Amino acid sequence: MSHGTAAATLARLRERAPLVHNITNYVSMDVAANGLLAVGASPVMAHAAEEVRDFVGIAGALVINIGTLSREWVAAMLLAADAATERGLPWALDPVGVGATPYRNAVARDLVARRPTVIRGNASEIMALAGQAVRTKGVDSTRGADEARDAARALATEVGCTVAATGKVDYVTDGRRALAVANGHPLMTTVTALGCTATAIVGACLAVEGDALHATAHALAIVGVCGERGAEGDPGPGTFRVRFMDALHQLDGAALERAARITDA
Amino acid sequence: MSHGTAAATLARLRERAPLVHNITNYVSMDVAANGLLAVGASPVMAHAAEEVRDFVGIAGALVINIGTLSREWVAAMLLAADAATERGLPWALDPVGVGATPYRNAVARDLVARRPTVIRGNASEIMALAGQAVRTKGVDSTRGADEARDAARALATEVGCTVAATGKVDYVTDGRRALAVANGHPLMTTVTALGCTATAIVGACLAVEGDALHATAHALAIVGVCGERGAEGDPGPGTFRVRFMDALHQLDGAALERAARITDA
Amino acid sequence: MSHGTAAATLARLRERAPLVHNITNYVSMDVAANGLLAVGASPVMAHAAEEVRDFVGIAGALVINIGTLSREWVAAMLLAADAATERGLPWALDPVGVGATPYRNAVARDLVARRPTVIRGNASEIMALAGQAVRTKGVDSTRGADEARDAARALATEVGCTVAATGKVDYVTDGRRALAVANGHPLMTTVTALGCTATAIVGACLAVEGDALHATAHALAIVGVCGERGAEGDPGPGTFRVRFMDALHQLDGAALERAARITDA
Repeated sequence: MSHGTAAATLARLRERAPLVHNITNYVSMDVAANGLLAVGASPVMAHAAEEVRDFVGIAGALVINIGTLSREWVAAMLLAADAATERGLPWALDPVGVGATPYRNAVARDLVARRPTVIRGNASEIMALAGQAVRTKGVDSTRGADEARDAARALATEVGCTVAATGKVDYVTDGRRALAVANGHPLMTTVTALGCTATAIVGACLAVEGDALHATAHALAIVGVCGERGAEGDPGPGTFRVRFMDALHQLDGAALERAARITDA
Repeated sequence: MSHGTAAATLARLRERAPLVHNITNYVSMDVAANGLLAVGASPVMAHAAEEVRDFVGIAGALVINIGTLSREWVAAMLLAADAATERGLPWALDPVGVGATPYRNAVARDLVARRPTVIRGNASEIMALAGQAVRTKGVDSTRGADEARDAARALATEVGCTVAATGKVDYVTDGRRALAVANGHPLMTTVTALGCTATAIVGACLAVEGDALHATAHALAIVGVCGERGAEGDPGPGTFRVRFMDALHQLDGAALERAARITDA
Repeated sequence: MSHGTAAATLARLRERAPLVHNITNYVSMDVAANGLLAVGASPVMAHAAEEVRDFVGIAGALVINIGTLSREWVAAMLLAADAATERGLPWALDPVGVGATPYRNAVARDLVARRPTVIRGNASEIMALAGQAVRTKGVDSTRGADEARDAARALATEVGCTVAATGKVDYVTDGRRALAVANGHPLMTTVTALGCTATAIVGACLAVEGDALHATAHALAIVGVCGERGAEGDPGPGTFRVRFMDALHQLDGAALERAARITDA
């Protein structure tokens, strides 16, 4: 199918520099804010119940990440998600660690019930979220990647949103359509919060591309291509992180188009 | 006018390694603490109402930054500001994002009412804070830089403190005197929380230089010169940040004096 | 005495990739999580009272760091420490800044009373914690390093745990046995939270080495050797931090054995 072009999304992102409102975990604060800045967006991190609605009111997208939860932050996340829905503002959910604890599962469930525009997680997070939907369909895949795809499709259909299960190949679906993004590098797993950064950049792309499936695939291609560039020469994780940030800033549209591997799935 | 020398302030900073107590936002924690360490100060980050007065009691300066607010942090900020005033301890305020939400405006107002020694913000933050003062004077500048200068002057006079409006050229005034600092590099805007780091280093300089106007100009010159050095060769933002930290550590007084562009304004 | 080998501990760490549950300060979140990932462990940062017991239930070790305290975090720390004790899970305490404020002293006391497996701090923190024990023994050392050793031994005996006082030479004791680790580099003091990162890596080693004295010495040797490698060529602190992370990832067992300087003390 046509999926627009990642280069066009990147160009709009840099032209408009959308404000992306993040309610995210402490570990990702630095790298996600810098990733958004480097790619051309304007990050704001704010979590006070007293002001999240106001930030949603001026933002181009909202990103909610449950990595380091606490009661007051969860209340702010729910407020912000509701405000985004009221305003018709796109929002992305990163269900970090869902499946690990009952509390985390309950918070994720409350957020998913508010119908995020996009949910991005790794295979096990998406499978944990989709648990119910997948089981009732009797899915019994034998391979992890297949299971993650089935789970993503079931979750997308049930919630009515776009779901991305990221891994060696990222799978993005809105239940009806599906794209695979085959960019990235194993070094990306040696730096913490690059998944959170990917979700933040999904948020940035949602602010400038109305088709959430395309926006998500474009964001993941941008992140994956920059991961490949940062990994050139196989550096250690410290150096890789620095070069990944450089790559986000220096990436140009033509190079992105040449390197992006987005295909129907 | 004479403004001491940035080199003398830097030498005292390294000799005394003042403890700088920061109540700052989550995004800036890492870079501001590392910036303070690299330049030669001793950072402490602490925000519990139970202990902020004690840290104020042993610190050489206090820095309050409202980037990521919440009710309990605001209470601690007010406690700490009051304790600093009682002790005669210099303190710097970074009104991140003031003007964006009513909550942020109210918190900033409460802090400004406690008369910080220095307020450092970008042009729009200083103009938001000075809104009332500027409007009543019927200021109607047509250029951003002029407006920011007028706002800084009005705010400094109203509050009785030193105000720095930073940008391409930083403007520092205590309402009566004014200095311009023409150091820095556009790459500094591609890394998050370097403004917060500048305010933290203003705090460090306040601990060793009694004239707040001079301390602020010296801090901004240090940060700006290190920004210029980090930007040599026009690297990406990841590499730039690393080199900026290196430069803060390696900067020597003679090089600082040669590169600092502090003039009457 | 025999102390196993740091290489064997490192090999098990990488083979098992233990989940290390951290309740740590905001400043160290990024560098400690990345340090754990780089060395081969699997970090999780979580502090909600609602879920810390669940994370303790699936972790290989717990690390509690009191750098940036607040009431709710302290409650979660106590809950997690109790859960670790119930489960027999090893846990490490980093008493950041103890001695600086009465609140910090009280929190540290409550945590020490729960008998951590390991306490790691700098000389002044260990001496502050050991204050009572040392005073009652009339210890009156004239040299800092000696005082720290006496304090570490007294604290280890009193609490019944392993204590590491780190500095130019790290001293590790369980009250009965003692090891010195003579690795490291002065540049390590120019980057914030590397002590916190060392404690996190102590946690990782505790998950794979049952003798806490050995696990601690091995962790400190790993961190110290990587500090030496990162410091080659005497870079600035920004570059040093990047290379330190690279070194944690690239360190191999044979090189570690050659470089580790662990001796009886």
